[in-house]
Amino acid sequence: MQLWRKSLGVAALAGVTGLAMTGPAYAEVSAETQYVFNTLSFMFHGVLVMWMAAGFAMLESGLVRSKSTASICLKNIALYSIAGIMFYLIGYNLMYTDVSGFIGSFSFLYNTKGDELALLEGTGDAAAIVGEGTYSIMSDWFFQMVFVAATASIVSGTLAERIKVWPFLIFVAILTGIIYPIQGSWTWGGGWLSEMGFSDFAGSTIVHSVGGWAALTGAIILGARKGKYGPDGKVNAMPGANLPLATLGTFILWMGWFGFNGGSQLALGSAADAAWIAVVYTNTNIAAAGGVVTAMILTQVLFKKIDLTMALNGALAGLVSITAGPDQTNHFISLIIGAVGGGLVVFAVPLLDKLKVDDVVGAISVHLVAGIWGTLAVGIFGAGSLGTQIVGILAIGAFVVITTSIVWLALKSTVGIRVSDEEEEMGLDKSELGMEAYPEFGHGSQTLS
Amino acid sequence: MQLWRKSLGVAALAGVTGLAMTGPAYAEVSAETQYVFNTLSFMFHGVLVMWMAAGFAMLESGLVRSKSTASICLKNIALYSIAGIMFYLIGYNLMYTDVSGFIGSFSFLYNTKGDELALLEGTGDAAAIVGEGTYSIMSDWFFQMVFVAATASIVSGTLAERIKVWPFLIFVAILTGIIYPIQGSWTWGGGWLSEMGFSDFAGSTIVHSVGGWAALTGAIILGARKGKYGPDGKVNAMPGANLPLATLGTFILWMGWFGFNGGSQLALGSAADAAWIAVVYTNTNIAAAGGVVTAMILTQVLFKKIDLTMALNGALAGLVSITAGPDQTNHFISLIIGAVGGGLVVFAVPLLDKLKVDDVVGAISVHLVAGIWGTLAVGIFGAGSLGTQIVGILAIGAFVVITTSIVWLALKSTVGIRVSDEEEEMGLDKSELGMEAYPEFGHGSQTLS
Amino acid sequence: MQLWRKSLGVAALAGVTGLAMTGPAYAEVSAETQYVFNTLSFMFHGVLVMWMAAGFAMLESGLVRSKSTASICLKNIALYSIAGIMFYLIGYNLMYTDVSGFIGSFSFLYNTKGDELALLEGTGDAAAIVGEGTYSIMSDWFFQMVFVAATASIVSGTLAERIKVWPFLIFVAILTGIIYPIQGSWTWGGGWLSEMGFSDFAGSTIVHSVGGWAALTGAIILGARKGKYGPDGKVNAMPGANLPLATLGTFILWMGWFGFNGGSQLALGSAADAAWIAVVYTNTNIAAAGGVVTAMILTQVLFKKIDLTMALNGALAGLVSITAGPDQTNHFISLIIGAVGGGLVVFAVPLLDKLKVDDVVGAISVHLVAGIWGTLAVGIFGAGSLGTQIVGILAIGAFVVITTSIVWLALKSTVGIRVSDEEEEMGLDKSELGMEAYPEFGHGSQTLS
Repeated sequence: MQLWRKSLGVAALAGVTGLAMTGPAYAEVSAETQYVFNTLSFMFHGVLVMWMAAGFAMLESGLVRSKSTASICLKNIALYSIAGIMFYLIGYNLMYTDVSGFIGSFSFLYNTKGDELALLEGTGDAAAIVGEGTYSIMSDWFFQMVFVAATASIVSGTLAERIKVWPFLIFVAILTGIIYPIQGSWTWGGGWLSEMGFSDFAGSTIVHSVGGWAALTGAIILGARKGKYGPDGKVNAMPGANLPLATLGTFILWMGWFGFNGGSQLALGSAADAAWIAVVYTNTNIAAAGGVVTAMILTQVLFKKIDLTMALNGALAGLVSITAGPDQTNHFISLIIGAVGGGLVVFAVPLLDKLKVDDVVGAISVHLVAGIWGTLAVGIFGAGSLGTQIVGILAIGAFVVITTSIVWLALKSTVGIRVSDEEEEMGLDKSELGMEAYPEFGHGSQTLS
Repeated sequence: MQLWRKSLGVAALAGVTGLAMTGPAYAEVSAETQYVFNTLSFMFHGVLVMWMAAGFAMLESGLVRSKSTASICLKNIALYSIAGIMFYLIGYNLMYTDVSGFIGSFSFLYNTKGDELALLEGTGDAAAIVGEGTYSIMSDWFFQMVFVAATASIVSGTLAERIKVWPFLIFVAILTGIIYPIQGSWTWGGGWLSEMGFSDFAGSTIVHSVGGWAALTGAIILGARKGKYGPDGKVNAMPGANLPLATLGTFILWMGWFGFNGGSQLALGSAADAAWIAVVYTNTNIAAAGGVVTAMILTQVLFKKIDLTMALNGALAGLVSITAGPDQTNHFISLIIGAVGGGLVVFAVPLLDKLKVDDVVGAISVHLVAGIWGTLAVGIFGAGSLGTQIVGILAIGAFVVITTSIVWLALKSTVGIRVSDEEEEMGLDKSELGMEAYPEFGHGSQTLS
Repeated sequence: MQLWRKSLGVAALAGVTGLAMTGPAYAEVSAETQYVFNTLSFMFHGVLVMWMAAGFAMLESGLVRSKSTASICLKNIALYSIAGIMFYLIGYNLMYTDVSGFIGSFSFLYNTKGDELALLEGTGDAAAIVGEGTYSIMSDWFFQMVFVAATASIVSGTLAERIKVWPFLIFVAILTGIIYPIQGSWTWGGGWLSEMGFSDFAGSTIVHSVGGWAALTGAIILGARKGKYGPDGKVNAMPGANLPLATLGTFILWMGWFGFNGGSQLALGSAADAAWIAVVYTNTNIAAAGGVVTAMILTQVLFKKIDLTMALNGALAGLVSITAGPDQTNHFISLIIGAVGGGLVVFAVPLLDKLKVDDVVGAISVHLVAGIWGTLAVGIFGAGSLGTQIVGILAIGAFVVITTSIVWLALKSTVGIRVSDEEEEMGLDKSELGMEAYPEFGHGSQTLS
């Protein structure tokens, strides 16, 4: 079975460092009960991660201007849908089936089969089919699928307000069907990075940095919104239209992250697994809290005002930072890791603006910068080797920068990726969808009539 | 015990078709552990279905105009409350207690009793009380109760912006306390339809079409909103005031649907049950994704713009479509079923407008049309008999059309169901509640002062 | 182990009254399976309670005016973060470690240790470490932590639109790190109130009234918003800016309450525990529904209009009311308890206005008034002694009133707690954060440009 997924990195690492992280003790839990617990963990935690799609949708809806809000809603529900279909059609097999170092199997569709079919239909002997530490293979598919969707969600926020819908969705299909699965196979599929001992518990690099790199190449190739950067180096604020929605989105993401990190234990069938998940929950929460408080204090000190959007991004940066190594039994380290992540965002956001990289929601700062930090932190505080962590960050970064740049440039030179200046001025909602997000409120209602 | 509920249709069906869907194998899970798993499944999945009440509230809040938004919020929280109380007072017994073919028992209140009371109070011998495949009876009540509420939620959206609050709530009390439970007893209560082999796993017909029929009779008897249909056949768009909320509502419903369909396996106490739920989750997600993509492509092709509200309704139609038979091990069939559902909505919405049936949120297209399609699909792709499926659709449809028409007409001829023209023009929020949903924004703020 | 927490009151009570609420029967569930179930219950239910932080944020965002909406969002995410950090740094130990009647241990940090560390690292013998009825200690920490955050959330709503951000957050740190844990140790930590038999299942008094008392002392010391109360005794309505968000917040809280009350069973490792949780879910839902319907009917009768915000607060009051004793097997009693709670709010809100206590969201009426009622109801309908319930209410009330008053007054006389009149007029968003929640909508957009 496939229980070594994602865990494998940690297990291999344990061998390297001598840490006695042996397999879970199933002394008193029957094999079939383990199967139910493990499957339940994938399903419960998978639902929480699915919910993060709503979190990204609300965060981005709140942080864009009202004239492009309906478009970002559409992109978010569309990308979640496309990610799920692509991962079913091709992605899962590329990532997890017969991985030979650098890539899995090119084969279509991922359906229940063999023994599990016999189990489902009651034609086999359950006791014989269900071994120790196993789980339903479709529960695993479900859990892995919602992770792919998270990667795509990261990209939509950065590129909001100027990218065309359909080219963006073509990019999403390639990202979730091919690019993400290939690099994912290197670690979680049991490929070369996992063999080196690269450790990324729930995906600071494999999910968040990948989304961040794709957003970065997209932002550079797409260019900034009209008027964002003045000729004299002035950065014009384009404040989000609905901050309570952005706050809601952040809370949703925070909630979903318990599934993201907790479920990545990949098992619930023993006392040790359950206790590890509780440790992961604790660290996840403490790191996020540390990110919020740091971002608040820093913005107060630096800007003399507390910045709500920085506090929200501080929470997310804390969460991304702890994602690579939420399995610390000293929770104070998590507080530090999250606090550093929250602090990094406060500096990264203006830095990107200085570089004229227009990231509408701050996703590059949150997911790429804090993702790198979190992955390094495993080498600094955790059991991982710092050198190996850097290799993983660079290898995955190089692969994603190159492949996504090719896709963006190919799209740009064929169907085009950017709306016209007039359409951008009008807002994507009217130009692409022919509708308004808030037809009765404020500017929208005035310009409409 | 009552484990045959909802499952019974499937089990009977298995007998008919020869499919070897035997009972779950509990070889290695002790009876008491099964009890905990089964109860947990009802509770976890029930909470997700409860959450759908919020999904409907947000979807409808987003799709009505701002002058009737507070009213739709009120109706949604009120209907969820009334459904729960009515199902406790009378509905559950009508649906599940001593069902004699066409109806259950007319008896009041549904409390824990007998053996379970002994179990709770520790006065009985747990090992003797807890048999294989059992569960807490109140967990079952909770899970069934949230389904009733979903049925009522469907009606409120269609009739928004013109129906009076109290008559609507009286209708809800009768629908959830009497009409829904009686037709529900025919299949899930073990009545005549289940004996025929009618198969509706989680309620494409029993929940969604019932809500859809009630919405349809209500829409016809209540009439369209003033100005919706011009004298020359022109359909005037009355766009929703807050599309991010509608998007949020759709994501909430999608999330809740894992509970709706997954929990309808009615057990988690064996490896086979857990694996089936994972299959159900997978199909549920893929069908919804198929609905989104189809609706997007069709609106792009037909209208030259992607319609966000159609994409959202496409997701919901995909979900409704798969609800009758989410237990396919070939997930590609789910993609097709969901895609067809999403496509149907794109055609059904303008068709209803042509017929001057004013459905504010598209609920009839989503829940009735896709509900019928999903129920037929079990006969086409699944193990069900198409003839029996049609019998079930027609029987339940006829019963609900007749009974709800009688209730609507009785309310119309006594207390009245429609606000006056002046009140409708002013908006229900001021006329019925004396308040505004968004007192400081846009039109609202201007007309108020 | 610590399973007696919160349960202890009930267990002691059972001894007093002769009710045969013996310990759960674990006849057929292995000790390790129990451990997994119990831990899972804390994690699942804890996530639901964490989600209540978003519910409070949305409720309050919807009920404040738009010029102070971003501030209330910030306060909510900050208070959740600070509560978590303080409970990790000091609070948990004060509440649960070596409680000697009136207070626990002054010691810093709460990390996994001892046997559990051996279990996690696989260095110990799981079968020897895991005893009957045990659970992961960090899962317990997580569950208790989210409760503290709920207490703080109650305060922010009452004091909105006029309190400075940083002094409020200092108050939150003291409330969640010191005041809440000390009074919590009296009952749930096994201190003097639990020894007396004070019964508060999930915290009508210990969580909700404590938040309510802190809000009350704050509201009195801080004073009302400018213009709220006219010189002639006139109460000026200051309607909330976004009622769909308030509705969403209420639904989130309702959903989260299944975790709040259900998880407070503190175990899921036996059929009896699972059945009790199902009973708790049922009562929780029925009480909330009763609160909604009562508030609706009363506002219709008294004010001739249904008041949406009263209906929402009715739901919350029903939930608070049932929190002290949701373990009734006669669910009709829960309907009554919730209905009375919902009714109390309809009278308490105008009463507080008469007393010129300006509670922006009605939190004092909901959490303090209904919290007292719910705690008394255990003495009236449940197995508790009315006298002891009154002692608990008074003792905790006196302690919180005195300590929070000292903190508020100390803050007032040092850093100050209230923004200037000009800042209040301008709104906290501009004065404290330098931003707007809805920069493009309605009043906001007009005053901005």
